[in-house]
Amino acid sequence: MIEDTRPLEDVQGRRDERGIDIDQAGVRDLRYPITVLDRARGEQQTVARLSMSVGLPYRFKGTHMSRFVEVIEAHRGEVTMRTLPAILRELRERLDAESARVEAKFPYFLEREAPVSGRKALLDYDCFFLGESIGPDEGFVLGVSVPVTSLCPCSKAISDYGAHNQRGYVNIEVRPRRAVGEEPELVWIEELVEVGERSGSAPVYPLLKRPDERHVTMQAYDNPVFVEDIVRNVAEELRGDARISWFRVEAVNQESIHNHNAFAEIGWTRPE
Amino acid sequence: MIEDTRPLEDVQGRRDERGIDIDQAGVRDLRYPITVLDRARGEQQTVARLSMSVGLPYRFKGTHMSRFVEVIEAHRGEVTMRTLPAILRELRERLDAESARVEAKFPYFLEREAPVSGRKALLDYDCFFLGESIGPDEGFVLGVSVPVTSLCPCSKAISDYGAHNQRGYVNIEVRPRRAVGEEPELVWIEELVEVGERSGSAPVYPLLKRPDERHVTMQAYDNPVFVEDIVRNVAEELRGDARISWFRVEAVNQESIHNHNAFAEIGWTRPE
Amino acid sequence: MIEDTRPLEDVQGRRDERGIDIDQAGVRDLRYPITVLDRARGEQQTVARLSMSVGLPYRFKGTHMSRFVEVIEAHRGEVTMRTLPAILRELRERLDAESARVEAKFPYFLEREAPVSGRKALLDYDCFFLGESIGPDEGFVLGVSVPVTSLCPCSKAISDYGAHNQRGYVNIEVRPRRAVGEEPELVWIEELVEVGERSGSAPVYPLLKRPDERHVTMQAYDNPVFVEDIVRNVAEELRGDARISWFRVEAVNQESIHNHNAFAEIGWTRPE
Amino acid sequence: MIEDTRPLEDVQGRRDERGIDIDQAGVRDLRYPITVLDRARGEQQTVARLSMSVGLPYRFKGTHMSRFVEVIEAHRGEVTMRTLPAILRELRERLDAESARVEAKFPYFLEREAPVSGRKALLDYDCFFLGESIGPDEGFVLGVSVPVTSLCPCSKAISDYGAHNQRGYVNIEVRPRRAVGEEPELVWIEELVEVGERSGSAPVYPLLKRPDERHVTMQAYDNPVFVEDIVRNVAEELRGDARISWFRVEAVNQESIHNHNAFAEIGWTRPE
Repeated sequence: MIEDTRPLEDVQGRRDERGIDIDQAGVRDLRYPITVLDRARGEQQTVARLSMSVGLPYRFKGTHMSRFVEVIEAHRGEVTMRTLPAILRELRERLDAESARVEAKFPYFLEREAPVSGRKALLDYDCFFLGESIGPDEGFVLGVSVPVTSLCPCSKAISDYGAHNQRGYVNIEVRPRRAVGEEPELVWIEELVEVGERSGSAPVYPLLKRPDERHVTMQAYDNPVFVEDIVRNVAEELRGDARISWFRVEAVNQESIHNHNAFAEIGWTRPE
Repeated sequence: MIEDTRPLEDVQGRRDERGIDIDQAGVRDLRYPITVLDRARGEQQTVARLSMSVGLPYRFKGTHMSRFVEVIEAHRGEVTMRTLPAILRELRERLDAESARVEAKFPYFLEREAPVSGRKALLDYDCFFLGESIGPDEGFVLGVSVPVTSLCPCSKAISDYGAHNQRGYVNIEVRPRRAVGEEPELVWIEELVEVGERSGSAPVYPLLKRPDERHVTMQAYDNPVFVEDIVRNVAEELRGDARISWFRVEAVNQESIHNHNAFAEIGWTRPE
Repeated sequence: MIEDTRPLEDVQGRRDERGIDIDQAGVRDLRYPITVLDRARGEQQTVARLSMSVGLPYRFKGTHMSRFVEVIEAHRGEVTMRTLPAILRELRERLDAESARVEAKFPYFLEREAPVSGRKALLDYDCFFLGESIGPDEGFVLGVSVPVTSLCPCSKAISDYGAHNQRGYVNIEVRPRRAVGEEPELVWIEELVEVGERSGSAPVYPLLKRPDERHVTMQAYDNPVFVEDIVRNVAEELRGDARISWFRVEAVNQESIHNHNAFAEIGWTRPE
Repeated sequence: MIEDTRPLEDVQGRRDERGIDIDQAGVRDLRYPITVLDRARGEQQTVARLSMSVGLPYRFKGTHMSRFVEVIEAHRGEVTMRTLPAILRELRERLDAESARVEAKFPYFLEREAPVSGRKALLDYDCFFLGESIGPDEGFVLGVSVPVTSLCPCSKAISDYGAHNQRGYVNIEVRPRRAVGEEPELVWIEELVEVGERSGSAPVYPLLKRPDERHVTMQAYDNPVFVEDIVRNVAEELRGDARISWFRVEAVNQESIHNHNAFAEIGWTRPE
């Protein structure tokens, strides 16, 4: 009885009379397995949380939400900086829209080698891709959150021994430069991880044996940094990288002597 | 032994040689009890999650994080749209900074009366205040997240009976207009709650007896809205409110027929 | 200089004199890619959040945390109900412990077909494996969280039209029966998903076209359930499944007329 | 039209024929302002997340969810270890149930004084109350999460200088002893905070000036502890406290050299 096939009205396609454009209409918190590029292994399978939307002109009542899922289902094979332009194009076509936006957040894994023993295991990094297409313009952002050890320069300087230290996160977002009509410059997650790790007192590792623990303990003590130092270290490197046209870097320390966090942030756009 | 009183170096005050300004340096995820303004009862005590920061000129190595806590401790009595200007001023003075930023996120409670039985109980709303002071400029934003019921117009139109509905959140952020040298116009949390509730299919309530449940079930069925309708409803009201110079409204539906959410968003700045 | 190779003391192996056994000592919030069994496709790659621990006898000061990561790194290929016994055995051997515990939480994806159009896409389910080994005993639990639509029987009965409905989650945990010396009975994630979906008013889907939306809207209206009905529906099915020796089922509704959730729970152990 | 007053059927009160008792049916994630006992100031206002449920006999289809909110609304004045017995009693009476359960999670604030400068500010602790009433039996649990600094004994012992340290949380749950027919022994949140703080390398503070930072840095270096040491320190104290009939203590370290956490746990019941 409920399977009848009379034509069903396209309610979303009804005319809206209020004359108000909508910047974004779409789906959010859609979890999907995706494949991303991996510098060492070619590709890597992970699980993303997706947000996809389009701009909706004032005359339409609603957008067609199921088409977002259809587009991502068709691209299950790969959601990367390389395929985002095609995904944005399809969203605009399928949804008859003048703008589209896709954001994919996912954990990414890299094999890290302990500094003395050489023991290997995987470390997880929270990453995201963001692609936006508005009229003739396209923009892409790659974000990576890099865990590091940070050791407080003040605590070291004023104490007879010891120094408080903690896990911190260096959150780096970059917009690769892009010549008109070309794909954006490729910036690897792996490169941003390395920039982030160099900015702290020491990297963190998934697996450390005793000689490794001795190494990182002393490495951190030898390289004290404030959150302010971390963001400046990253800013200095990224300004010098001609592939990058914009970045935002944030450092957040899980302060070991407080129950709140310290943070610092720098945003930067390459002058024309 | 560790209580000696030799003068301790001000490491944060050291000179930094990299020539890089920092946009924000401060503390985050600091939980603190605060008092906010309550239209009906004068004031309300709640618990906030605070983020406080200042801009740091290129010549200083770091900021003095403990002073943020000192400033908020001194204002334990009230953190509201009325006191934010003073808090920002103190942060700039105490930290010798040319900009400051304070964000307070907190739950706010309003007594809601069931529509038929008149039974009363408290409903919670996630809110935030944001204040920014940069050079001679100050900006303030008030944000309120309003839970509503939304019933799908498409589901209702194409089905012989029933219609899928769900809890949704209408997230409204407004920047009150502000004449030079004066406090910003006062916009009450209560007013934004009312705007948000009017935009959905029906309000949600903390306490409903059977006649109330009958009422809201039928009210929602009589007023179907997409997320797109919700943000347009709010946009239309806020554009007409001369006290508001900017807003952003987002509607998010916890779709009852999917495991992902639908959303729509409109941002707007009042033309000069 | 910091690479010297003098022997480093095994501090964890020091004797503790307080005479207090520790129930669990280990690592938590370790994110790792894992492979799990997939009934339709053989296996599925996903990302897990792992907790691994051992019991620590009173005489030892600490456990050797790096060995947990070594064991999981060695099993990167597969963490499933089939391999948990071997992982637990290795943890006990490597850490010289009389008990071990492993918990893996991960999203699992199944292709779901829309009920009328037949359109396919992936739906995500939060799952977990738990394995415990204490002396000669071993125990295993499989958990699956199944999203469903639930439509309120009271709202339907007392209203002239419409009925409030919402997304709910049916959280099912089962302990498969296990003959002495044998592997536990295999219960598939897919089977628990089906039990969960049958217990609600209608399944949720990743992708629905208009005829599908009409179908599920009317299906839900035709099958109203309280959270109490959901857990009883699941309990009735699982009691009748001889492979299951224990279960706990919980239903949680994101009430569309409230800003809080409704829930119900039943736990059950098969009588000897 | 929708305000008519015909009697509405009590659908929840319908008979269920499956013969299955439900352990818990109720509401969850209900946010409410509550007042709790404060040793220094008499009482403290905070915001709780509540879970309330009753057991439902096999013969009833559902429970009456609105009554949970009515009971908590009536007790807005105070939800504490002292009032939980009355709340449980009312839930059982109002809902005609043989068991009831209430859980309230809330942040609690204590003024902490910096160890050298004496500067004061508030520190937040996640706490919970749990009350259960089943037939003639009642049980109560108080939980407190205490942030501490922990400094690694292994890292200190094997390194020429420095030692990794981090913020950790000591999660203590106690069941106060209770003579038949009497209220449970009063255990203060403040007491458990002190036990937790003594168990780590150093307390954490909301506000530290330079002499304070020097103090806690060296205090932590002088008192290295593993998570295993922390839980044994707490266990030793609580076993010696005759007011406590059961406890569970868990220590979790936000390891500064890893991206995962270390933890240890001990549960204990006082022998009769």
